[in-house]
Amino acid sequence: MQPIGVVHSPFKEKFGIPRQPGLAPLAQADLELFSPYDSPDAVEGLEGCSHLWVVFLFHRGHAGWSPKVRPPRLGGNRKVGVFATRSPRRPNPIGLSVVRLLECRPGRLRLAGVDLLDQTPVLDLKPYVPYVDRVDDASNALAQDPPEPLRVEFSDEAQRSCLARTQSLGLPLDQLVVQLLSQDPRPAYQQLDSERVYGMRLFDFDLRFRFPEPGKVYVQELVNCTE
Amino acid sequence: MQPIGVVHSPFKEKFGIPRQPGLAPLAQADLELFSPYDSPDAVEGLEGCSHLWVVFLFHRGHAGWSPKVRPPRLGGNRKVGVFATRSPRRPNPIGLSVVRLLECRPGRLRLAGVDLLDQTPVLDLKPYVPYVDRVDDASNALAQDPPEPLRVEFSDEAQRSCLARTQSLGLPLDQLVVQLLSQDPRPAYQQLDSERVYGMRLFDFDLRFRFPEPGKVYVQELVNCTE
Repeated sequence: MQPIGVVHSPFKEKFGIPRQPGLAPLAQADLELFSPYDSPDAVEGLEGCSHLWVVFLFHRGHAGWSPKVRPPRLGGNRKVGVFATRSPRRPNPIGLSVVRLLECRPGRLRLAGVDLLDQTPVLDLKPYVPYVDRVDDASNALAQDPPEPLRVEFSDEAQRSCLARTQSLGLPLDQLVVQLLSQDPRPAYQQLDSERVYGMRLFDFDLRFRFPEPGKVYVQELVNCTE
Repeated sequence: MQPIGVVHSPFKEKFGIPRQPGLAPLAQADLELFSPYDSPDAVEGLEGCSHLWVVFLFHRGHAGWSPKVRPPRLGGNRKVGVFATRSPRRPNPIGLSVVRLLECRPGRLRLAGVDLLDQTPVLDLKPYVPYVDRVDDASNALAQDPPEPLRVEFSDEAQRSCLARTQSLGLPLDQLVVQLLSQDPRPAYQQLDSERVYGMRLFDFDLRFRFPEPGKVYVQELVNCTE
């Protein structure tokens, strides 16, 4: 198995990445296809697909498999079998995400709704086939509905910083921040601490935020990263 | 990458396997999980999932990748990029099928709606997460709807043979045959030949059928295989 390409994403570290694809529609990434998979032939017809499956490798910090894991989705205090979850701690470090295809050029695909770390190696790319992949009667007792979103508030400074970056990024950064933080990126086992400032690396800055009260996240500031 | 298990399926050869999962709901298979993945821990909670993703290897007759392929779905006379299809002729021989979970025991899962060859090595198993995997607004210009099914008719002999095997197989064999053959298993580039008898290995017998006229398949007989 050899990667066919690599992801270029605004997510520079694991913390803060949406826990499933599609939860943050404004989270966009480029998929670069390596030669010889960058030929126009290989993606012909793909532009007619609204969504794709990305089969990728969990490449960073794969700590080996564990028979049972604590999904954040279950509050982090309940262990279930790894095969009942999408946790990275599986025997083969293969991830699977459905993403929206925004733009399809040979060698470079623009994707939206990604939950992919920057530099993720990609093994395969498959079209979403609605009449097969969309299972209308599917049920999942552990994760039937999306988690309840948090309310996101911005400091004046953070709001200004988002606005200032919106043009160069080509997307409404404040809305992306809302989509990301409303999912509550905290590890579920963590104690509530309204004073603690969390940092999340996004694009070339650190997004800093607190959880002042239950159900709410407060965006404090955006700090440029030198590294 | 090491297989975590292997599929035991009634499909003993590639010809006749449904081209996508779910098209033949009565096509059932067992997934045997190898040690140490056969522990009760590893599948705890999976019983609450109606459907699973099976990530598998195309293990037989993988002829290497091809930038363009002729999907049977498009009549076999139109070439499109391999990444716009689910064809096995991809750079990494990884397949992906959503199947129904009928029964979940440690080390052995009973699956339905499979499109998996017997002895298929399995790399991973993931729960179907409806709010993520079911993309309601997805579209695919190459394959939006399932193909138009053929009408299936049985000879008296074939009907009797199906009935005779129904009890030992534990499923209505004639209905399974209808589900399989109505998909038209012929390679799409083949000329119509109403006399030609096709054979498809299923369980321990050969299913023999013809295509007497457009839109129709005629089940001639079931012949026991000695091998």
